[in-house]
Amino acid sequence: MNQPQASVSSEPRTSALSGARENLRRMPLENISTVAGAAIGDPSIIPLWFGEGDLATPAFIGEAMARAVRDGHTFYTFQNGVPELRKALSDYLTGLNHKPVQADRITVTGGGMAAIMLSVQLIAETGDNIVVIDPVWPNIAGMTQLVGAEARSVRMDQGPGGWSLDLDKVAAAMDARTRGVIFASPANPTGAMIPIETQVALLEMCRARGVWVIADEVYNRLVFGQRAAPSIVDHADPEDRVLVINSFSKSWAMTGWRLGWLTHPPSLGPTLAMMIQYTSTGVTTPLQHAGVAAVRGGEPFVAEVRDYCQAGVNIAYDALLGFGRVRLGPRPAAGMYVLFEVEGMEDSREACLSTLRQTQVGLAPGYFFGPGSNGFLRLCAARAPAVLAEAMARLAPALS
Amino acid sequence: MNQPQASVSSEPRTSALSGARENLRRMPLENISTVAGAAIGDPSIIPLWFGEGDLATPAFIGEAMARAVRDGHTFYTFQNGVPELRKALSDYLTGLNHKPVQADRITVTGGGMAAIMLSVQLIAETGDNIVVIDPVWPNIAGMTQLVGAEARSVRMDQGPGGWSLDLDKVAAAMDARTRGVIFASPANPTGAMIPIETQVALLEMCRARGVWVIADEVYNRLVFGQRAAPSIVDHADPEDRVLVINSFSKSWAMTGWRLGWLTHPPSLGPTLAMMIQYTSTGVTTPLQHAGVAAVRGGEPFVAEVRDYCQAGVNIAYDALLGFGRVRLGPRPAAGMYVLFEVEGMEDSREACLSTLRQTQVGLAPGYFFGPGSNGFLRLCAARAPAVLAEAMARLAPALS
Repeated sequence: MNQPQASVSSEPRTSALSGARENLRRMPLENISTVAGAAIGDPSIIPLWFGEGDLATPAFIGEAMARAVRDGHTFYTFQNGVPELRKALSDYLTGLNHKPVQADRITVTGGGMAAIMLSVQLIAETGDNIVVIDPVWPNIAGMTQLVGAEARSVRMDQGPGGWSLDLDKVAAAMDARTRGVIFASPANPTGAMIPIETQVALLEMCRARGVWVIADEVYNRLVFGQRAAPSIVDHADPEDRVLVINSFSKSWAMTGWRLGWLTHPPSLGPTLAMMIQYTSTGVTTPLQHAGVAAVRGGEPFVAEVRDYCQAGVNIAYDALLGFGRVRLGPRPAAGMYVLFEVEGMEDSREACLSTLRQTQVGLAPGYFFGPGSNGFLRLCAARAPAVLAEAMARLAPALS
Repeated sequence: MNQPQASVSSEPRTSALSGARENLRRMPLENISTVAGAAIGDPSIIPLWFGEGDLATPAFIGEAMARAVRDGHTFYTFQNGVPELRKALSDYLTGLNHKPVQADRITVTGGGMAAIMLSVQLIAETGDNIVVIDPVWPNIAGMTQLVGAEARSVRMDQGPGGWSLDLDKVAAAMDARTRGVIFASPANPTGAMIPIETQVALLEMCRARGVWVIADEVYNRLVFGQRAAPSIVDHADPEDRVLVINSFSKSWAMTGWRLGWLTHPPSLGPTLAMMIQYTSTGVTTPLQHAGVAAVRGGEPFVAEVRDYCQAGVNIAYDALLGFGRVRLGPRPAAGMYVLFEVEGMEDSREACLSTLRQTQVGLAPGYFFGPGSNGFLRLCAARAPAVLAEAMARLAPALS
């Protein structure tokens, strides 16, 4: 979330902000929170705007953190993560995937976002570019721009069967300064999965050009009726230029904890440790012990989160089917969102603001998710069924 | 800390590391942890190498975090920090300094290092340079290099009265691409304070050139016999290009918690929120509530830490006075370190390794703290008196 940004446009010309890097001053300050503005925390609003459900983190995870504090795990620790958590994640990934993932390929990060920060910092600087497959979470492009690189949008195609990635468009977007291709599968906001054969073909294309593949697998456990989404890790050699982002936020309902990890080639471990040394010094020590508890004991809860998201997505989707102005693709098979197109809507930001005033339901505007998504709105369906039903009832008149 | 880096020099030429930014591949991977290597955690070693004492974090701080978790403070929160902590820090700084510091000038960060990361990212990119006053903590120069900028060393002068800063040397180091000057007062590793008159003169010099002043005040409460070191905040206008780094790590014995803050011009709040959005999404929510407890209830403990450091510094300093090969400046008046010169020592890294083998005491090599500091060693004296006495007894034969 974010503070209301009322002062942004009115800052005096003599303000210290004029001393920030020109690149930063050109970056938009708006995000879902700034659109939500003063309505954040208002109990009369049903907030479906953020990528966050209403399930509380299981108590045993909090108890593990408290125990770690009491046991004195409050000192500096290893930059790549405490060995217990790297080992727990190694076991977890090895059980989830076909190929084993050794602990020296895992670096613990302060959330999925920090894993993206490290990935982008590792490969790109001013003058470089990264191809970002969208519709996708806006922060990937944001971090790319933060280091002075260009985020090149390649939009997935929406057909009767859902969203699909055309690799020819990816190839056409690449040039000599392209350093990476980033995609999310399952994706936020579409829930779309890129078939593993397409991911492998993308990897081969990137291999031939020396370009990095960065896969955001944060939603990999929220595939309805399945254990996990297929992972590119199963199809890459350890020393391929492949980085995989993951997070405790969604699957373990730990958004506010800020814990995630990066799966990377073993040779990068010391370089990532150095980068972590100079950006954060490492991840909160007792929090990492909470992560061990989550990974070792959280499987029943992860299944519960997945089923909760599926139920919510179905409630929202079924309601939206009856709204006259809404156009829907196939029912999402993964994730926690429904992305939908609204006929006649020209400005998704303005539509969110007017919908909020009219219905007191908070939605996210499509334009955040890529240049071609301004005709869309996103709702997060990881909410209690009764609350979602109420939200859909409120939305009906605005979208019919 | 850091993993042993044995694999670094032997990485195969086909490794993925070759795909990292060239700038990163040129950066040294060595730090105190890599020098310490396999000896980390060895109970036969007395570890005086890290900037970390042996005092446990007060239990009430851990209890506040556990309570925040139980109260459901586990969701995403404001990027600039939870309002309660910004307010608590505003009250704290206003009580500590002469000028009030409003909450809109405070952004909560994941430790002092993250505050430095944001500061450097805010002002510098490839081709820029930042003047770094040393001897100083190596991570400031490290972060500067991470963004592709040059860290220009200006060394303080060591005289009979201690360390002093020659502003003419700072002026001589600056050019059209200089974006900031970073200093720490009290400094790690010297404990030296830059007189506030000199800080003000530096600010005026930087003002005239549009250059940022970044003050690391992480040790501001560890001034022996005093409440706090003077702060540049008292002599700057809110919209001056001044950033002040602080942390819970040293004063509240919270190294492994990763909590700090940045004091900044009000106009930068939204830009910092955007940068935090794209680098970490914000600081662990329950941890911020622990920070509120630390600030509101931690003053007796902060005084205890300060006196503990003073006692330790005195024990170490008095012992070092009797070592034949050691040359000492005046007794440190702040901080948690003793930095000392060793006659005939040409390579501080090698000296640390041989001292470790010979005495099983871990010291930090001077060369980490700036180009002119290779004749020095640093010890952290924030240790129990009996342990320090034992360490000094072990060190005596090696340094006499």
